[in-house]
Amino acid sequence: MINNHIIINDVGPRDGLQNQLKVLSCEQRLALISALVKAKVPEIEIGAFVSPKSVPAMAGTSELCAKLPSSNSVFSALIPNMKGFEMALAAGVPLMSLVVATSNTMNLKNIRMTTDESVKVSEEVLKAAKTRGANVQAYVATAWACPFEGKIDQDSVFDVTEKLLNAGASSIVVADTIGAANPLAVNQLMNAMAERFDIKQLSCHFHDTRAMGLANVYAAIEAGVRKFDASIAGLGGCPFAPGASGNVATEDVVMMVEQMGYSTGINMPLLIKAADLAIELTGTATGGKAKSWIEQYNLN
Amino acid sequence: MINNHIIINDVGPRDGLQNQLKVLSCEQRLALISALVKAKVPEIEIGAFVSPKSVPAMAGTSELCAKLPSSNSVFSALIPNMKGFEMALAAGVPLMSLVVATSNTMNLKNIRMTTDESVKVSEEVLKAAKTRGANVQAYVATAWACPFEGKIDQDSVFDVTEKLLNAGASSIVVADTIGAANPLAVNQLMNAMAERFDIKQLSCHFHDTRAMGLANVYAAIEAGVRKFDASIAGLGGCPFAPGASGNVATEDVVMMVEQMGYSTGINMPLLIKAADLAIELTGTATGGKAKSWIEQYNLN
Repeated sequence: MINNHIIINDVGPRDGLQNQLKVLSCEQRLALISALVKAKVPEIEIGAFVSPKSVPAMAGTSELCAKLPSSNSVFSALIPNMKGFEMALAAGVPLMSLVVATSNTMNLKNIRMTTDESVKVSEEVLKAAKTRGANVQAYVATAWACPFEGKIDQDSVFDVTEKLLNAGASSIVVADTIGAANPLAVNQLMNAMAERFDIKQLSCHFHDTRAMGLANVYAAIEAGVRKFDASIAGLGGCPFAPGASGNVATEDVVMMVEQMGYSTGINMPLLIKAADLAIELTGTATGGKAKSWIEQYNLN
Repeated sequence: MINNHIIINDVGPRDGLQNQLKVLSCEQRLALISALVKAKVPEIEIGAFVSPKSVPAMAGTSELCAKLPSSNSVFSALIPNMKGFEMALAAGVPLMSLVVATSNTMNLKNIRMTTDESVKVSEEVLKAAKTRGANVQAYVATAWACPFEGKIDQDSVFDVTEKLLNAGASSIVVADTIGAANPLAVNQLMNAMAERFDIKQLSCHFHDTRAMGLANVYAAIEAGVRKFDASIAGLGGCPFAPGASGNVATEDVVMMVEQMGYSTGINMPLLIKAADLAIELTGTATGGKAKSWIEQYNLN
């Protein structure tokens, strides 16, 4: 049976805001999260428990957690290590995200650890999560290419994924951190991943750096993936990866998959309002292309 | 055997320029065409033999033809009817393009004929072309959706295609005139077309109105299509179709398909120069995303 439902995780309030020059207040971040909740986005990455010195935009995520609106959306937060795990646990975050880059260079630049060291730290966190009843997923970053090391070998992706799943990660987000994947490469890797792992535990994260964001989403859907990260209004990027501008815009992903016959449960007019708010708050996001299309043809 | 070569037809000097507010001079149009020739773009749509009153940007295409650079690129021009055919023949254009929209409303707004009337006019032109040794291809426009009539039935596309091929069209360009197609719909239609017709006679034309341009190209490649229209720097649109902004950018299509392992024979650095020129000449084109990517990572 074909699964016709696609789950969207909006990473705008974390991956998006983290990469803006402008640092938003706790209230502004909450306003954006609330707009996404109203649009019925099923999963929302609300922040990160990282050093406020390294990432000022994510400072005060604990305080933000205390003020989150009640909702049916699953809130997640990024945790780089055990310290972040403890903070996220104390803040009551229902889902936490670890990140391991398959590229040593990227991993070192990002969190000052090799891939192996990063896997070990993640395994320790996942062990602690099991004991203490926390739900932790893991990102396998630079899964297709790294700006420093070039093309990534599929085996590294399989290896890191296997270790993290064995250690108890509830799911794996295969991430094209720098927007370097092409749809054929996405199709090949995700088909190979689907042979080795449970496709229901796999999700994909794409950037639109090279205009291939939606092409990559489509190629992953063909391989059976039914869960995607996306960022409202295309907010995003990666401060440690030169050129990695903008996650694929949530409103564009929703537009495409719904017109392909998939359901997302998301309210498009309210999603466009959330995109407008993201643009207003940051002053930099341009928004996806769904908005003008929908306004033009009144398709909703 | 899989065909790993993809043919690009750059429609920037016609579909692109026709939709700019700024009307370029014959010399400026020639400069753009020459830049595409230098980049070794195999096919270039250089102009249209249409009423200069209706489409001022295409006035003087006959004069332009007399000054075209000698090259290995195949030059084509749009002809709306027998008068255009005669003008194109007199100007020595090696390939002419007829257009029939599958939607009556679109056809009426575009050329004041119903689809049936337009097919008849095209059949007459194709008959004359056979007698006089001219090479004429045909666009099947609004093949997926029409802004006025909505979703287009596949049977209308098959029907128009069959009639035009039977009348002697050398190939058929299946065109998403308003950028309304999604990759699943592209894959379905082009697979169905490949069952009925010779895939080598089929080509696709996509707009990036909804960020799905490259996704649609990918979906068509999967169905076996190996020839695509694209427009340098994403110039384009359709003056008769509200909201149909921008053809998919040639440099982005070339970047994607080459990274997927296909050859195009196009020189990417010179193609980026052509895109820069298109931006400079029109003052409106934004360019594709390939440029910044290539500059960032020095990938060429």
